[in-house]
Amino acid sequence: MSKVNDPSLKSWIEVKKDSDFPIQNIPFGIFSPKDKSPRPGTIIGNTVIDLSVLAEDGYFDDIINEEYDAFFASSLNDFIALGKEKNSLIRDKISELFRDESEVIRDDEKLKSRLLYNQSEVDMHMPVEVGDYTDFYSSIEHATNVGTMFRDPDNALFPNWKSLPVGYHGRASSIVVSGTDIHRPNGQTMPADAEKPVFGPCRLFDFELEMAFITRKSNKLGNPIKLEDAEDYIFGMVIFNDLSARDIQKWEYVPLGPFLAKNFGSVISPWIVTLDALEPFRVEGPKQEPEVLPYLKFKGKRNFDIKLEVALKPENNDETIVSKSNHKYLYWNIAQQLTHQTVNGCNINPGDMYASGTISGPTKDSYGSMLELSWAGKNPIKLNDGSERKFVNDNDTIIMRGYCESNGHRIGFGESVCKVLPAKKY
Amino acid sequence: MSKVNDPSLKSWIEVKKDSDFPIQNIPFGIFSPKDKSPRPGTIIGNTVIDLSVLAEDGYFDDIINEEYDAFFASSLNDFIALGKEKNSLIRDKISELFRDESEVIRDDEKLKSRLLYNQSEVDMHMPVEVGDYTDFYSSIEHATNVGTMFRDPDNALFPNWKSLPVGYHGRASSIVVSGTDIHRPNGQTMPADAEKPVFGPCRLFDFELEMAFITRKSNKLGNPIKLEDAEDYIFGMVIFNDLSARDIQKWEYVPLGPFLAKNFGSVISPWIVTLDALEPFRVEGPKQEPEVLPYLKFKGKRNFDIKLEVALKPENNDETIVSKSNHKYLYWNIAQQLTHQTVNGCNINPGDMYASGTISGPTKDSYGSMLELSWAGKNPIKLNDGSERKFVNDNDTIIMRGYCESNGHRIGFGESVCKVLPAKKY
Repeated sequence: MSKVNDPSLKSWIEVKKDSDFPIQNIPFGIFSPKDKSPRPGTIIGNTVIDLSVLAEDGYFDDIINEEYDAFFASSLNDFIALGKEKNSLIRDKISELFRDESEVIRDDEKLKSRLLYNQSEVDMHMPVEVGDYTDFYSSIEHATNVGTMFRDPDNALFPNWKSLPVGYHGRASSIVVSGTDIHRPNGQTMPADAEKPVFGPCRLFDFELEMAFITRKSNKLGNPIKLEDAEDYIFGMVIFNDLSARDIQKWEYVPLGPFLAKNFGSVISPWIVTLDALEPFRVEGPKQEPEVLPYLKFKGKRNFDIKLEVALKPENNDETIVSKSNHKYLYWNIAQQLTHQTVNGCNINPGDMYASGTISGPTKDSYGSMLELSWAGKNPIKLNDGSERKFVNDNDTIIMRGYCESNGHRIGFGESVCKVLPAKKY
Repeated sequence: MSKVNDPSLKSWIEVKKDSDFPIQNIPFGIFSPKDKSPRPGTIIGNTVIDLSVLAEDGYFDDIINEEYDAFFASSLNDFIALGKEKNSLIRDKISELFRDESEVIRDDEKLKSRLLYNQSEVDMHMPVEVGDYTDFYSSIEHATNVGTMFRDPDNALFPNWKSLPVGYHGRASSIVVSGTDIHRPNGQTMPADAEKPVFGPCRLFDFELEMAFITRKSNKLGNPIKLEDAEDYIFGMVIFNDLSARDIQKWEYVPLGPFLAKNFGSVISPWIVTLDALEPFRVEGPKQEPEVLPYLKFKGKRNFDIKLEVALKPENNDETIVSKSNHKYLYWNIAQQLTHQTVNGCNINPGDMYASGTISGPTKDSYGSMLELSWAGKNPIKLNDGSERKFVNDNDTIIMRGYCESNGHRIGFGESVCKVLPAKKY
C-alpha cells in the first residue's frame, strides 16, 4: 500500500472523525475563493488548499517542469493530463506537506493565509471540462428491476446484457457541479389514456444514483485500450446523479435511446477521488456467468467497496435517507467499461466522464432510483415528515453521498446536492 | 438578398465554372500551410485565404475590437462565437476585398504571397472543437426503409416519429475531417446462426449520408431556444458521413441506442458553409401531418435545396456514384431539431454539431446508406469496375459531395472523403 494511504497518518489540519477528507484522501477539484478566479485545489478536513499557491511557491518543482499552467487553469484537464506518475507524486507531496510532523507550512502563517480556506468560504466548480460523456447500464439489479417492471419478469434482461456492458452516449454540456438547482423539464409525453402526445412539465421526475470515472489520457482513434491497461487511463471517480424524466423517456427512447429525458442536467460531487486513494477498498465483483469474451476478461479485484446513499429533503424539512447502495454491486467493472468503449477504436481524452448507470443493490432499500424504490409509483416511499413520494416533487432536494470505510479509515466523495425547481413556463 | 450572394459578382481570383467555392460562398475552415500551424481560412476557387493575415493587417479593424485571438486559433469556436452580426460583416468584407473591381489586395504581390495558398498545398483540419454531438433521424424515407426492412412494412415508423425529431447523443471525439482513413472496427456481434456472440471485424460496414449544422452561441441550462430564434444559433453546415457497423449495431442497440456501431469515426467536409450563403436555396419541406405540437410549429422556408451524392471508389479504380439525394427531403428541419434539443432546458455551445440522420430520397437511387441501397444485402449494387457491393469493402473510398445550384450560381460543400482500411488485429 502507498505510504500516503496509511490509516495511521495524521494531518496538522483538523480532521473530524467522520470527515470524507482525511489526509489519506487528497481528492482534486476546482474552487474559487471569494472574488478570485477558479483554480485547482484539494481538501483536508474542512480546509481547502490552493494548489496554484503551492505550485507558485515551488513545492512541486521536483515533479513538474514547464507544466505550471496546469495549476492555474479553471479546469483539471491539464492537471490530469500530467499523467499518472506525476499526479501520484503530487498527491504524495501534498500528503508530506500536511502531515502532523511537517513544519514547513504549518509554521508559516503568511503562507497559510494565502493557501488555506475554510470549505464554507469557497465556491466549487465543475472539476473538468467534459469532452465526451458515456452512461453505462452496469447494475444487474437495476437492469433486472426495469426489465421486470416494463417487460417480462422471466426475461428481464435483454439478450446482450451479460455479454457486453451496455452503454450510450449522453450530453456533456449539462453535467453540472453539486449545488446547481435544476428546473423540472418540459417535454413531450404520451399519457396512457391519450390519443396524441401532450406538452408540459415532466410528471415523473427521478434521480439515478450513479458514480462516474474520469479518464486521464488519450488513445489515438483506431487504437483500442486493452483491459490490462484500462485503469492506467482512469484518474478518479465522482458521485453522479443522472436526473431522469421517466415519462419523457418512455415516449422518446425507442429506437435510439434516451435523449431529452436525460440531458437537462446531471449533478456530480465536486471532488474527484483518485484511484490511488481508492486502492485499499478494492473487492471482488459479482461472478460473471456466462463467461465473457476474451477482450473483457480480467484479473484481480476490479470493484470498489463504496457505500452510497440517497436522501430526499423536502423544503423546510429534514432529509430522509431513501436508498443505501454500494458501488461493489456493479456487474461490469470500470476496466471492462473502458475496454468496451474503445474496443472498436473509439478515442477518449482527459476529462471524459463515464457513468456507471444506476447502482441498485439486491434489497428493496438499496435501489438507486425512485422508479425502482416506488416500483413505478405502486409503492410510495414515506418520508420522515409524513409525506409520500412516488417520484421527486418540486422543491425537493436530492442529496447523494458516498464513502469507503474500514478500520476507521474513511475516504469520502462529499455530496452531490440538487434542488428540483418547478418547471418554467414555456 | 445580401449583396454578397449576388450571382453576378466575380472575383479576381480564378474560379472555374463548376467550383464549389465562388465568391458567393466564402465558407470557413481551419487549414495549415506547409510547416505552419493550423489557422482560420476561407476559400475562393482553389485558393485558400489566410484569415490570420487579413486580421493582422487590419482588414477587420472596423468589425472586431479585442477579439483578434479568434483569427489565430486552431479551431473556429472563438470565431463563430463572435456572433452572427460580426461573422456576416467579416464575410461581407472578404467578399469586397476579392471582388474583381477591388485592387487593394489584387495589386499587392507581397501581401498575396503571405495570404494566398493553392488548395493542394495546405492540410485541412477539424474546423471546430466539437463540444457535443447529436445525431437526428429526420428523413422519413430512411426511417420508413429501415422500419420496412426490420419490422413491419405496414407500421414502418415508430409511433413517436411524426411527433418529434427523434435523436440521440453521439461521440464528439471521433468526428474527423475529410481525408482521415478509418479502420474497419472490431466488435461483438451475434451471427444469425450462432448461440453466443462472437468477436471480430465488423462484416456490415456502412456509410450514412448526412449533413450537420454547427451552432454558434450558448443558451443557459434551463433556458430553451424558441423555434423563431433557432436559426440565430446556427452558424452553418457541413457534409457528415456517419460511418456505421450494422452488425455491431444490431446486437448492441436495444434498449439504449447505437454506441460502438457509430463511435469509431464520422467524417465531415472541412469547410463550414454559412447559413448566409445558403439563404438563396431555401425551399419548403415535406408537409408535416399530423400537425406538430405548438413548440415545433414554424413559418417560412426552413429546408434547403442541397444536392447530395455518394461515390464508392475501389482501390485503383474509378468511382461509381451510388446515391443522389437532397437535403430538402428532410421531414424535420434544422430549426425544429435545435428547438426540440433544447425544449427541456438542455444547453448548447458554439461548435456543437447536430447531424440530420441519413438523408434518403423517395427513389431507390437516392437512398443514403448501403443498408438501404442493397436492401440489407439482398440487391447488391454494381460498380463501374464490374464488382458488386452489399456493404463497403476494405480499401474502398467513400466520397460524399453536396452543392446548391440555380442559374449557374453554385454554392458547394466540397467533399467528405474516407478510405476504409482493413480491421486491425486485436
